[in-house]
Amino acid sequence: MVINAMEKIMKDLFSEYEHKLQMKCTCESCKEDVLAMVLNKVQPKYVTNEEKVMYIKAGYVDKQEMTTLLVKLIECAKLVSDNPYCKTGKKAEVDQSSTV
Amino acid sequence: MVINAMEKIMKDLFSEYEHKLQMKCTCESCKEDVLAMVLNKVQPKYVTNEEKVMYIKAGYVDKQEMTTLLVKLIECAKLVSDNPYCKTGKKAEVDQSSTV
Repeated sequence: MVINAMEKIMKDLFSEYEHKLQMKCTCESCKEDVLAMVLNKVQPKYVTNEEKVMYIKAGYVDKQEMTTLLVKLIECAKLVSDNPYCKTGKKAEVDQSSTV
Repeated sequence: MVINAMEKIMKDLFSEYEHKLQMKCTCESCKEDVLAMVLNKVQPKYVTNEEKVMYIKAGYVDKQEMTTLLVKLIECAKLVSDNPYCKTGKKAEVDQSSTV
């Protein structure tokens, strides 16, 4: 079993800051789009068991590194929020453009 | 659900070339060490569903890109083979050094 410790780190960071990201749509599809996008922008940290995931996570106590990850998460949340790929998001866009 | 398509691509490449890599030890632990190591050296390709994984994999038909991945896999297989972290590998090393 190989696991990218960054998946856990990013998921936890996302849950912690989700309400502050002010995404227009927070459906499961949009949240997964944000996670996939941000995980493609950070260096993977693959390990071969769960304990090592926690070890890597503990290493992220350094404020600077966490801030860097948070900035990337905020960027990706904005990109997805501005260009929703999910049905709800698309419908809201159509409604908005038809009222203009 | 977010998935790194590179995990599937690398696992398939590893199974295809495993017998040509001439690793001293091919126990599960050593194979996972090779996978984790090589996945940390390639750009992740996270997607949000299984079909997209196949789509990404199909995009890797380009020989040059596959060759680049294979070279990285061979390098990581050599590193793990030369410095086994597993019990069997460690024991073989001890036996070898005691016969010198």
